[in-house]
Amino acid sequence: MSTAPLDFTLSAGPTMATPRTLAALGSPIVYHYDPEFIATFHRAEEKAAKVFKTTNDIVLMQGEAIVGLEAAARAMTRPGMKVLNLAQGVFGKGMGYWLTSFGAELHEIEVPYNEAVSPQAVEEYLQQNPGIELVTAVHSETPSGTVTDCSKIGPIAAKYGAMTLIDAVSSIGGLEFETDEWQIDVVVTGAQKCLGGPPGIALLAISDRAWERILDNPNSPRDSYVSLVDWKLKWKQNEAFPYTPSVSDVHGVESVLDQVLEEGLEQAIARHAAAARATRAGVRAMGLELWAASDEIAADCVTSVRLPDSVDHVEARTHIRNNYGVMLSSGQGAGNLLRLAHMGPSARGMYPIVGLAAMGQGLRDLGMQVDIGAGIDAALTEIAATRQAAAV
Amino acid sequence: MSTAPLDFTLSAGPTMATPRTLAALGSPIVYHYDPEFIATFHRAEEKAAKVFKTTNDIVLMQGEAIVGLEAAARAMTRPGMKVLNLAQGVFGKGMGYWLTSFGAELHEIEVPYNEAVSPQAVEEYLQQNPGIELVTAVHSETPSGTVTDCSKIGPIAAKYGAMTLIDAVSSIGGLEFETDEWQIDVVVTGAQKCLGGPPGIALLAISDRAWERILDNPNSPRDSYVSLVDWKLKWKQNEAFPYTPSVSDVHGVESVLDQVLEEGLEQAIARHAAAARATRAGVRAMGLELWAASDEIAADCVTSVRLPDSVDHVEARTHIRNNYGVMLSSGQGAGNLLRLAHMGPSARGMYPIVGLAAMGQGLRDLGMQVDIGAGIDAALTEIAATRQAAAV
Amino acid sequence: MSTAPLDFTLSAGPTMATPRTLAALGSPIVYHYDPEFIATFHRAEEKAAKVFKTTNDIVLMQGEAIVGLEAAARAMTRPGMKVLNLAQGVFGKGMGYWLTSFGAELHEIEVPYNEAVSPQAVEEYLQQNPGIELVTAVHSETPSGTVTDCSKIGPIAAKYGAMTLIDAVSSIGGLEFETDEWQIDVVVTGAQKCLGGPPGIALLAISDRAWERILDNPNSPRDSYVSLVDWKLKWKQNEAFPYTPSVSDVHGVESVLDQVLEEGLEQAIARHAAAARATRAGVRAMGLELWAASDEIAADCVTSVRLPDSVDHVEARTHIRNNYGVMLSSGQGAGNLLRLAHMGPSARGMYPIVGLAAMGQGLRDLGMQVDIGAGIDAALTEIAATRQAAAV
Amino acid sequence: MSTAPLDFTLSAGPTMATPRTLAALGSPIVYHYDPEFIATFHRAEEKAAKVFKTTNDIVLMQGEAIVGLEAAARAMTRPGMKVLNLAQGVFGKGMGYWLTSFGAELHEIEVPYNEAVSPQAVEEYLQQNPGIELVTAVHSETPSGTVTDCSKIGPIAAKYGAMTLIDAVSSIGGLEFETDEWQIDVVVTGAQKCLGGPPGIALLAISDRAWERILDNPNSPRDSYVSLVDWKLKWKQNEAFPYTPSVSDVHGVESVLDQVLEEGLEQAIARHAAAARATRAGVRAMGLELWAASDEIAADCVTSVRLPDSVDHVEARTHIRNNYGVMLSSGQGAGNLLRLAHMGPSARGMYPIVGLAAMGQGLRDLGMQVDIGAGIDAALTEIAATRQAAAV
Repeated sequence: MSTAPLDFTLSAGPTMATPRTLAALGSPIVYHYDPEFIATFHRAEEKAAKVFKTTNDIVLMQGEAIVGLEAAARAMTRPGMKVLNLAQGVFGKGMGYWLTSFGAELHEIEVPYNEAVSPQAVEEYLQQNPGIELVTAVHSETPSGTVTDCSKIGPIAAKYGAMTLIDAVSSIGGLEFETDEWQIDVVVTGAQKCLGGPPGIALLAISDRAWERILDNPNSPRDSYVSLVDWKLKWKQNEAFPYTPSVSDVHGVESVLDQVLEEGLEQAIARHAAAARATRAGVRAMGLELWAASDEIAADCVTSVRLPDSVDHVEARTHIRNNYGVMLSSGQGAGNLLRLAHMGPSARGMYPIVGLAAMGQGLRDLGMQVDIGAGIDAALTEIAATRQAAAV
Repeated sequence: MSTAPLDFTLSAGPTMATPRTLAALGSPIVYHYDPEFIATFHRAEEKAAKVFKTTNDIVLMQGEAIVGLEAAARAMTRPGMKVLNLAQGVFGKGMGYWLTSFGAELHEIEVPYNEAVSPQAVEEYLQQNPGIELVTAVHSETPSGTVTDCSKIGPIAAKYGAMTLIDAVSSIGGLEFETDEWQIDVVVTGAQKCLGGPPGIALLAISDRAWERILDNPNSPRDSYVSLVDWKLKWKQNEAFPYTPSVSDVHGVESVLDQVLEEGLEQAIARHAAAARATRAGVRAMGLELWAASDEIAADCVTSVRLPDSVDHVEARTHIRNNYGVMLSSGQGAGNLLRLAHMGPSARGMYPIVGLAAMGQGLRDLGMQVDIGAGIDAALTEIAATRQAAAV
Repeated sequence: MSTAPLDFTLSAGPTMATPRTLAALGSPIVYHYDPEFIATFHRAEEKAAKVFKTTNDIVLMQGEAIVGLEAAARAMTRPGMKVLNLAQGVFGKGMGYWLTSFGAELHEIEVPYNEAVSPQAVEEYLQQNPGIELVTAVHSETPSGTVTDCSKIGPIAAKYGAMTLIDAVSSIGGLEFETDEWQIDVVVTGAQKCLGGPPGIALLAISDRAWERILDNPNSPRDSYVSLVDWKLKWKQNEAFPYTPSVSDVHGVESVLDQVLEEGLEQAIARHAAAARATRAGVRAMGLELWAASDEIAADCVTSVRLPDSVDHVEARTHIRNNYGVMLSSGQGAGNLLRLAHMGPSARGMYPIVGLAAMGQGLRDLGMQVDIGAGIDAALTEIAATRQAAAV
Repeated sequence: MSTAPLDFTLSAGPTMATPRTLAALGSPIVYHYDPEFIATFHRAEEKAAKVFKTTNDIVLMQGEAIVGLEAAARAMTRPGMKVLNLAQGVFGKGMGYWLTSFGAELHEIEVPYNEAVSPQAVEEYLQQNPGIELVTAVHSETPSGTVTDCSKIGPIAAKYGAMTLIDAVSSIGGLEFETDEWQIDVVVTGAQKCLGGPPGIALLAISDRAWERILDNPNSPRDSYVSLVDWKLKWKQNEAFPYTPSVSDVHGVESVLDQVLEEGLEQAIARHAAAARATRAGVRAMGLELWAASDEIAADCVTSVRLPDSVDHVEARTHIRNNYGVMLSSGQGAGNLLRLAHMGPSARGMYPIVGLAAMGQGLRDLGMQVDIGAGIDAALTEIAATRQAAAV
């Protein structure tokens, strides 16, 4: 049997992009020192700051979000520095490996991947372990669909004199994130998640005191693709790009920032929450099990569904994709789970229904008992309730 | 409450277009006598012939399909000519008004708009009414979602010496249509239905004997936008366009023809049939009533659902669109009905589920009893069965 | 030798479109009764009115501009009506044929195709021939690159009680045209000329008294693709489209109207004038002869160059296109001439240089003496002078 | 005076992209593990190999070309390794700084930036300095528009047992480059130069023996954005991406590779050579001075023009851009020079004329004596000669 054509990309990033975003990506490529592009780049930075809710510097590094994480982690650490890393998923754990390889003295709070490190645990740890200079955390652990409460962790770290480096790759634009209010020093996000853009740019927000540490740090990369120092000294201070930025991606990123700002950031966040509620209601009513230990820590950008041992997540994903033209995500190291993203453009309207229907039928094909009808009914009821609440 | 953004165009034409089609529509506009465009135009004609299954001349008139219907009806009739018109819906009825206004002696077989004129009725009529020179019929009556059996009507008309003019606007590319095999003289289709293209071009297939009548007919429009004579004398015989063709639309049309030919016409037809089966199964299992008197005459490109008097079709369409971002079609003169199209790109994958879910919830909001869960379950079961059958 | 790929479309319509226009043409196709499209259509009408400089009704007919000319000419005439037609080129002459075929009593002032009918001649004719109810004229005769002075002809016609029907297909958006100020009753334009859009829509501006005549006229087409009555009764009075509009083309047209309004209509007109000055300066300095009898009547949207008998215009156009990738226009019935358009996006920057260089080299290849260097130098000097004047 | 809108991007990369390339960049974003994307990625690698003329492994790193240069340089060197670097321009010189910072024992042959290191000089150096393990060179020094003869340097290095790392960022796809024939171990190119693509991907070709050194090298970056080891172990051996590739950019890159392969690589190279000949002829006939010491070492992808001290290159570039809508490049560290690129789509047709005309008028505005007419005439004569030669 031939593979069905791809109709719906409901994966956990890259997710689907709007036609407007695609038009921006396909707009003419211009020289990076053309006055039009210089203006575009500055506008993109300013719009990004609004989405980050910060007055800090914005850096748009060319590359997938991970280039920003690597650049930030390298620039913010030096051998022997005490760093507290919160590990509640694959990406959090990975940050710990990096920190160790960069020579930091790693302190880590680790929880099972369907739970979240609590702010209390962070506070206790910092209290008991003085001298920690940096706290690193993942706001939204995409592979497992959980969130950690940065609104509390940021101020706690600040209280104990530690800076914060937050991986908010899959949350900015869809989940509440208040960089300045929460006193976060370095935040890294990607364009291809809740913003619905291309996976070609890492967006960073960097506080003045973080810049100070970065510039003072002899271990900060310099004259390198992963150098934040270069961006500060060349671009921020001299309007000279350290290398040619990806013009098309910048066009795409400006467009997705425009779209989220025109919609209103609060509204976009509410939209992700509503799609998540509908999806979770649908999953439960189908008789399936949510991965996240509680709704409180379930990410509003992606819903993870625990599969029984009898059904393999990669096989399930492939079966659903090949038969029904719907691309979901599998567990990516976090466990035997399927993930239905509701990110950016897919956190809207009937998209949760598409994901639920395709998953339900696919799992039924693979021998599971799934009450699809009940699931769709519950999800639609939730969607209708959201509309009615908005109408009041 | 604000209107939801549009996510899904599942209306009965224009229907949604693929990204590839949109890219073709957005490709550079060139001069109509540029050698590249002349080549494009010829290729589009050749590809259209394959989709029409004919060796007859193809004419690509610029304008919505109705320009082709008017041009053909005017060119094929003269005052006093006996014409048999089959009226089983809004468009069939409208053709009768036109024929009368053009001076033809109108003969008409009319049936309720949820039924279809039978080939037997046509044969009897022709037998009893000698001298009929033209039979006109609508293959797929889009406003009511019914089909008439042209595979039999064509040969019957030929047997009695009448030519045929068939409105196949919403069927070509999605429903079986064999122009030559069925001995059809003039066929008219549009790009924005089963082909999934723009509503800017009428495509006609014209037999040699139809051309003969058209050129001989003093009543055929000449030097006019609705003139087929101009297309024959200027373009077909001299490669001079009677007027500037819509370059963008021609690009779009070539692309949709490419797509259907690459997929395979038989495969595309099977895809529409499968989507229709799933949709009808879903409608029935929801406890709703299909409009078409029997599945045999239900069109595979659009499924019509009869609404009770308590719910107005336009209000229902608007409610669904404004709340759930899904655009369906209302009755358009045929009755109090909602239409879920499965045309071109929407006759695939999970699109029937989207239409069913949005319709079901919308009707529920408006006070109807709808078993959405059962409907979605039945539709998915049908979709899965199609995949499994293909796998054998 | 193989044909060079097409790099530059400098033909007299369709002309090149901007990337922004192409993106609009390639934006998603929506249902014509979707609230988004209804809003788009109204906006396009309102923006068109601004470009026409009128408060009259705007009608957007689907089809190349000629559909609008035919619709207007048919609707405005009745058998026996006295009509004065100004024939100074191919399109003006064609209007006369149409008027005769529609039964009008044709009065015609004809001049050689490189000259223009003067307002004085019109006034004298109307004075000497009372009872003329309609004056028809072509503002910009695209095939010969000449203009007639509608700013005077409109008021003269009004003074003598005649209505006016003006073919402004290739002038609106690039040449000054004041519909209301000049008292013009019916104006027809196309999107693919100075607006730089697709050739799929005819735009008309119709005065109240013209509507009155059209609705009263029993000869006005009704229930037809070329019917203005349908647009008035169905769309203008009832928001029901007489047929499905070409959604993509409407998107394209709104975009080009936006672009000209954002630039400023005065600025766009000045831009066309500047490009025309540069082109004419270049042609003259090359030692070639301009077709228009005087600069005063040379159209600012297209410059026509008279060729000697030894060089055929179609052959020259083809040679230039096939060797240098630049598409110019040939004479199209007006004479042995080449046309360099500076329309819409090609009335800007270095485009006149491209046209002049390609034409110059092409004609040199064909044996003519052409001082290309002097021509380019003169054109650049003119372009630089325009920039300097703007800088003051 | 307001800035003119941008009409022509004739800069030395990013250069203009074709509409087909832009459509590819704007095509739907899909999940990186979707079967369609996996297939696309493999196809892009295979097509790149054909353009590199190699059977070696291709690596498509996400990021501007420099990420590939850094990754390759880091992976191929270890502290104390003897490396011979050829410095004939800004990028060559920069490679030397990198090598030193990575701990290599730097050997360097340096020449003025308008000259080229000769193969003889390389051979002599290697003969006199045994133990050199790597030779690094820039094939086409974009900032100065010069080339070095890698067809000889590759085999010479091989003969002396050294591997080669060649920066061919601005040459692949436009200048002759035979990776296997010339025995080059590591080649790095970018998409945004002669390929006419987006600046978001670095393309590398890596020989088996280079891989061996890279994997053996404890200094090769690992678990890093600049790691070639990751690409080998994860992607090449396990079909797992080290990070999410930039889906849009990969679409764009596949498209530009398609375009060059459909044209024919030899034909594309000839096209760049012809555009360069026309440009150089035009520059000389204008009375301006070419930067490259001889035509033999002048790059066919970009022509550099030496400016007198009285005219500043950045000011000239800005003046031309702002007044005439043509973006050229300035010297970028190599000297007081203007650069007219003829790269990818701009190495065709009338584009050299556009660049020459804009530069000529701009320099005239700034007070220089420029015989523009003679320059355009000479360039057109060269272009016409190329067409005639092709016709034989």
